[in-house]
Amino acid sequence: MIKIALLGFGTVGSGVAEVIENNRRVISRRLGEQTEIAHILDLRDFPDSPYAGKIVHDIDTILADPEVKIVAEMMGGVHPAADFTKAAIEAGKSVVTSNKAVVAEEGDKLLRLARKHGVRYLFEASVGGGIPCLRTLADSLSCNDIISVRGILNGSTNYMLTEMTKRGIGYGDILPEARALGYLEADPTADVGGFDAARKIIILAAMAWGKLLPLDAVSTVGITGITPGDISAAAAEGKKIKLVAEATRTGGRISCSVSPRLTSPGSMLYSVDGPFNAVEINSNAAGRTLLYGCGAGKLPTASAVVSDIIEAALRPSEDLPAYRWTKAGPDDIIIPGLTDGIRPLCE
Amino acid sequence: MIKIALLGFGTVGSGVAEVIENNRRVISRRLGEQTEIAHILDLRDFPDSPYAGKIVHDIDTILADPEVKIVAEMMGGVHPAADFTKAAIEAGKSVVTSNKAVVAEEGDKLLRLARKHGVRYLFEASVGGGIPCLRTLADSLSCNDIISVRGILNGSTNYMLTEMTKRGIGYGDILPEARALGYLEADPTADVGGFDAARKIIILAAMAWGKLLPLDAVSTVGITGITPGDISAAAAEGKKIKLVAEATRTGGRISCSVSPRLTSPGSMLYSVDGPFNAVEINSNAAGRTLLYGCGAGKLPTASAVVSDIIEAALRPSEDLPAYRWTKAGPDDIIIPGLTDGIRPLCE
Repeated sequence: MIKIALLGFGTVGSGVAEVIENNRRVISRRLGEQTEIAHILDLRDFPDSPYAGKIVHDIDTILADPEVKIVAEMMGGVHPAADFTKAAIEAGKSVVTSNKAVVAEEGDKLLRLARKHGVRYLFEASVGGGIPCLRTLADSLSCNDIISVRGILNGSTNYMLTEMTKRGIGYGDILPEARALGYLEADPTADVGGFDAARKIIILAAMAWGKLLPLDAVSTVGITGITPGDISAAAAEGKKIKLVAEATRTGGRISCSVSPRLTSPGSMLYSVDGPFNAVEINSNAAGRTLLYGCGAGKLPTASAVVSDIIEAALRPSEDLPAYRWTKAGPDDIIIPGLTDGIRPLCE
Repeated sequence: MIKIALLGFGTVGSGVAEVIENNRRVISRRLGEQTEIAHILDLRDFPDSPYAGKIVHDIDTILADPEVKIVAEMMGGVHPAADFTKAAIEAGKSVVTSNKAVVAEEGDKLLRLARKHGVRYLFEASVGGGIPCLRTLADSLSCNDIISVRGILNGSTNYMLTEMTKRGIGYGDILPEARALGYLEADPTADVGGFDAARKIIILAAMAWGKLLPLDAVSTVGITGITPGDISAAAAEGKKIKLVAEATRTGGRISCSVSPRLTSPGSMLYSVDGPFNAVEINSNAAGRTLLYGCGAGKLPTASAVVSDIIEAALRPSEDLPAYRWTKAGPDDIIIPGLTDGIRPLCE
């Protein structure tokens, strides 16, 4: 029996419980034993949930339970999530997470701490929801020099751009609608300003090259300036505007940007519409690989979390070089200049 | 120092040597040590190659070298490749391969033998060249019930269909051209008859559900019957004809087919043109995941072989349930009926 604890019982947390319950048979076949959710940390109570008896309000209950070997953190925000992660690792537990803010900000330190304590820190769900992009960089392309990584990493803005293109309308017209449909947070800045995509490209770049860039090293332009005129000018050329996050390495220096780009029908990213995400990896032997799927949503994100739980259970103290990150220094970074207008995406 | 032996020094074999040489730095970073090619088995000599001194003509030289821990088999054909694989495993060596015929025919036995001897048998390169489709099924989607797997798995026929569509010509017109360009073997039956794709969907289905189907359980129609009329009728509806391999499981029974299908612009497979391949996995939590890339070619296929070498070096005796296959019996299989005409592909 593998006992796990969940931190956060919102959309992703309840999705993780659902996947563990519904896919019990396939998971136990993979693991050779059963999994059980021992505790769920949340500020709220859930009196009507079948998990009501598992809800705890104090992280110490989880930290003090020696039977819990894996903690899944799905709280969002840097604090207290990062502090709880640190405490769980120090208590000898592996931590898996969907929390991109923590990984982009503290990933290097938490990976070092996990290595020191002989446990895992895994975060496939932090980028691209159910798309297996981080493990592909760590494992499947492990013999490649990675030339660049780019993608459509934010489902909300891709949904908005898809609708703007279909209907020939501007940002101001789609914003209230996207909000009404629940595609945006009360404060939509992280999505529409490109910062959510910036955090994700930071994580992808760290998986590719082992260097964790600070957020202010990513040249970031969101979609708020896109007008109906931009949309129709692109359509007149048979193109679509997509918010593309891109990381490249030249002469040992990493350059990251997030900005609206013109994509042509010849590009695979052109076909990525609605809330879908895609990650395109260009490597020196495998060539161009594209991974496409549900970039967000309850079950796809939960799928990545639970697959990481399985990984942590099967290989509880593995120490792969792909997970040895250091903070990027000034010599590791080029900050690309911001240009006016919407640049075309090279194929 | 990790010593490896190559069986076969043709296109893929020489590509593996090239990737190991060119990407020496990234590979040794992943492994924590250097790799060295100790022997290369081939019928020919290569007097002008830098590897001339490594060429051997007798498998026993390799089997008898206790320092060789990993053998990469890239010979093609079932015999003697399967026999050499068996002998290498019995000599305590892990085997990685690009040889889809061996995996589709003997995969279950070879995996069982590898488990018995505490070594690995890995074959990412046997399906989709550089596309990480098998490892995605084994690892990244490990918590999912797989509903279906389908894809464009043969680059030669996809190149031919792409040209036929672009130029509105039929199979008879493109065949000599594809042959002249080196896209086809002297006997093109395996490609154009759909049997190459059938072997690959058998391997994907085995990774998804643990059951290895015989080739005659896959309903297989190739592209030889496609006329200019079929192409223009599809184009008139804004569609493209693609050779799609598909595996689904219903009520515990697996059904596999390879046949020309009508794809619409809304489908990601519609955009897969030229020699590219794509694999689409539909799973119950992650939803629809598409993996796209170079499905063949020297370096992409070599990339998958070398990544498997790294995997075998890092986890020399891991025994994952995804690699426990049994032969499919009559109760595991539904053989889909062959229908006249070109069926549309459901989105």
